[in-house]
Amino acid sequence: MSVTFVNCFEVPTGREDDFFARWQGVNAHMRNRPGYEEHHLYRSLAPDARFRFVNVARWTSPAAVAAAHDDEFRALVSGPDWAEVVSTPAVYEEIHHGAV
Amino acid sequence: MSVTFVNCFEVPTGREDDFFARWQGVNAHMRNRPGYEEHHLYRSLAPDARFRFVNVARWTSPAAVAAAHDDEFRALVSGPDWAEVVSTPAVYEEIHHGAV
Repeated sequence: MSVTFVNCFEVPTGREDDFFARWQGVNAHMRNRPGYEEHHLYRSLAPDARFRFVNVARWTSPAAVAAAHDDEFRALVSGPDWAEVVSTPAVYEEIHHGAV
Repeated sequence: MSVTFVNCFEVPTGREDDFFARWQGVNAHMRNRPGYEEHHLYRSLAPDARFRFVNVARWTSPAAVAAAHDDEFRALVSGPDWAEVVSTPAVYEEIHHGAV
């Protein structure tokens, strides 16, 4: 079952560029893990949006998402720069879709 | 500029089916508004995820998103059933994408 990983990030004002650079480092790891299919990183147009960044990524399975959050991942997101960021990761299934 | 509207929903446990039914009523309105392009509604696999549902929708412009949140929309999301739901809507631009 293909699944969608969604992570909403709260980032302190003025720290957006730093966050984006560090996120790209994590992303370079994740996209090379087995089961990664695709990702979109979104940044809010409004600078005061609660979730300044949202990552929406598709993986082949929940197990693939779990396996990618490995020791290397944990090392990448440790340290004081990451402690300032609030993240809300979870795995989702699509239950409704439409398009014009 | 095509933009992405993201809304994360906190829904009380046991109220998911009711929320989904009401959300579809709102969605039926939104997808007929000018500028709507596409949407995906996601539900978390874990029943205790903070955001039980996430809506990711593409629109032609920020102005189209704003115009769709009209009086009819506000009437649809009024009432006690909606008061129990916490939503976090915002408009985003894609700043990073990748795929295998």
